[in-house]
Amino acid sequence: MAPDPETANYAFNHTMIRVKDPKVSIKFYEEVLGMELISDAKFESFTLYFLAFDHSGGKLTAEEKAESRFSREGVLELTHNHGTESDASFKGYASGNSDPGKGFGHIAITVPDVEKACQRFEKLGVTFKKKPSEGTMRHIAFILDPDGYWIEVVPGKIEGLGN
Amino acid sequence: MAPDPETANYAFNHTMIRVKDPKVSIKFYEEVLGMELISDAKFESFTLYFLAFDHSGGKLTAEEKAESRFSREGVLELTHNHGTESDASFKGYASGNSDPGKGFGHIAITVPDVEKACQRFEKLGVTFKKKPSEGTMRHIAFILDPDGYWIEVVPGKIEGLGN
Repeated sequence: MAPDPETANYAFNHTMIRVKDPKVSIKFYEEVLGMELISDAKFESFTLYFLAFDHSGGKLTAEEKAESRFSREGVLELTHNHGTESDASFKGYASGNSDPGKGFGHIAITVPDVEKACQRFEKLGVTFKKKPSEGTMRHIAFILDPDGYWIEVVPGKIEGLGN
Repeated sequence: MAPDPETANYAFNHTMIRVKDPKVSIKFYEEVLGMELISDAKFESFTLYFLAFDHSGGKLTAEEKAESRFSREGVLELTHNHGTESDASFKGYASGNSDPGKGFGHIAITVPDVEKACQRFEKLGVTFKKKPSEGTMRHIAFILDPDGYWIEVVPGKIEGLGN
């Protein structure tokens, strides 16, 4: 059905996941996946970190990237509840893929060449849930982020990037 | 740090959540939020549904929307494990916001006017986790999708829409 005109300018802005140690997670999302920390917001007991891929070809300034936090899609919000990173009794977060706690499944990134991307992930010591060579779906892979969340790696490319 | 050039064309394509009854969920994401079902894929024991907001101003054909499944950000993937919709013993999925199963937090949509959007959600009978008038953060709201997943409603607009 045609969407209600009232929703014409709505957008799927971000997805939020909790992380145990933001230093470890931000390093992973920046260095392994190539996202950038565009904004953060510190509160008394928690801090929010917003990451996104820069598709401007490097044209945006840091300020413009921060401003884009609510004017684009594809933003990842990491929530850090202060203290989890050094709390020996903290049992970690659920990935959402097993009971109890099944619900959320994964986030997914598109890459131009899954094989090539996975070779790089292997070199960087990334943990795989499923390599392209495993299982029946040879064109995709699943890697794990530092908290064990699943990240699907699928072939694809964003339009308008000249790639 | 500057991203590795190898990741230059990576993109945050989609977020996957499992849903009990796709008819109910698709109706919600289409009629309440204004997303569109752009593609689906049926397997023996499960079906995948891909939804996204159309920011083309109605220019894209259904075929072009389906093709955009892996060439854009902001896609929501709903996974339906066949049978859950009519299984009286199925206890539902975890939202990710309470133990056991805490991890995933929410997805978020930007809307031009949160107050106005929430008035419409109320008329449509949507369940609120937090209305704009509640709590300390008066400029945002949280609504629940049919499975109880949290959806944050935040002010914002996508650039280049002429809005």
